[in-house]
Amino acid sequence: MSDLTIWTYDWVPRGPRGFVRDLRLRWACEEAGLGYAVQTVPFDGRETNHLSHQPFGQVPFLSDGALEIFESGAGLLHLAGKSEKLMPRDPAGEAETVQWVIAALNSIEMVTVPWWFLEMSGAKDNRLAGWMGSRLEQLEKVVGEREWLAAGRFTVADLLMADVLRVSKVRSFGDRPATDAYVTRVTSRPAFRKAHADQLEHFAAADRSRSAAG
Amino acid sequence: MSDLTIWTYDWVPRGPRGFVRDLRLRWACEEAGLGYAVQTVPFDGRETNHLSHQPFGQVPFLSDGALEIFESGAGLLHLAGKSEKLMPRDPAGEAETVQWVIAALNSIEMVTVPWWFLEMSGAKDNRLAGWMGSRLEQLEKVVGEREWLAAGRFTVADLLMADVLRVSKVRSFGDRPATDAYVTRVTSRPAFRKAHADQLEHFAAADRSRSAAG
Repeated sequence: MSDLTIWTYDWVPRGPRGFVRDLRLRWACEEAGLGYAVQTVPFDGRETNHLSHQPFGQVPFLSDGALEIFESGAGLLHLAGKSEKLMPRDPAGEAETVQWVIAALNSIEMVTVPWWFLEMSGAKDNRLAGWMGSRLEQLEKVVGEREWLAAGRFTVADLLMADVLRVSKVRSFGDRPATDAYVTRVTSRPAFRKAHADQLEHFAAADRSRSAAG
Repeated sequence: MSDLTIWTYDWVPRGPRGFVRDLRLRWACEEAGLGYAVQTVPFDGRETNHLSHQPFGQVPFLSDGALEIFESGAGLLHLAGKSEKLMPRDPAGEAETVQWVIAALNSIEMVTVPWWFLEMSGAKDNRLAGWMGSRLEQLEKVVGEREWLAAGRFTVADLLMADVLRVSKVRSFGDRPATDAYVTRVTSRPAFRKAHADQLEHFAAADRSRSAAG
């Protein structure tokens, strides 16, 4: 019996379905064989209605008994502390995993998300495109030389990096065969497929429930 | 005797002096009373000449005996594992510290650095300004209600968040008295002052050495 609960929205529009970051935590739990419940906060009023749990109004957050943790990256490191399947236990393997978790968040996603934000805002001349290209090119070299980012095996760093990169606009920004093969390899894992299907079903069920209520 | 070495550039132009991220690692070592050496890689050719140590061509990276770790956030978490002065040892305090380290990197710096990048590129209409304002406003509420981010005491999360926020353009973006007081409080610590002065002296010595060679 597990005390883990992943908190996400009760409903989201179609666009972000399959990409809401509760998927990262679901995926990690599936990889590790950790049981978990899913609970929700309202999507409507998200900017202010759950700031006591998540000061930026976002999801996911994770509860583990009395502990409550926001930031998907922090939730992943917490789960990695529970299972060697997510992170090796030797100091070098652990350090390398943490390093690539942070690189996914602060060297890659720090560029891809603002770049995507500018694209969505209709900017004609996306001034982050050059930075984006150089970071993805550097990463292409890395994943061209190895199968997994850290410790010679799948870790939570691959889970996170692949989740950052699988966004279609990011993935189609230039032709990077090693990165493409890497993202395909990581997201072909059964744990990803289950987490992804479960998130889609969670929001589809919310549609059915709204429709029945209407 | 310590095996810690912080790697930075041999020289940088005046603009980034006092802000190169080796400062984060120097500061953490000073807080924790950990001895360390400083070594350098050339600034010229940085895009390609140390990719085997840092795949994005940046600094700092940290070596600890045979371990080598890039990403300043990962280096900070590694140092935090060495000293309770940087992170409490109880699971709740540790989880809260890690959560705010990740928030500094992925919820605040993910906005402030690309925003700053657009400002520097001369964008007239900075489309990240709205996002930047809302994130800083949310953080203003947090630091208006507590002295330190995590565990009711100074941790490495404060070190990192204050370092993200102290950049002058970020700090002068709107009037946020609680954030301003927070940044002043954290950067008034003697360990910050020493690390900051040491970095300035490191690059000033490089100027003198270049000048003597010329």
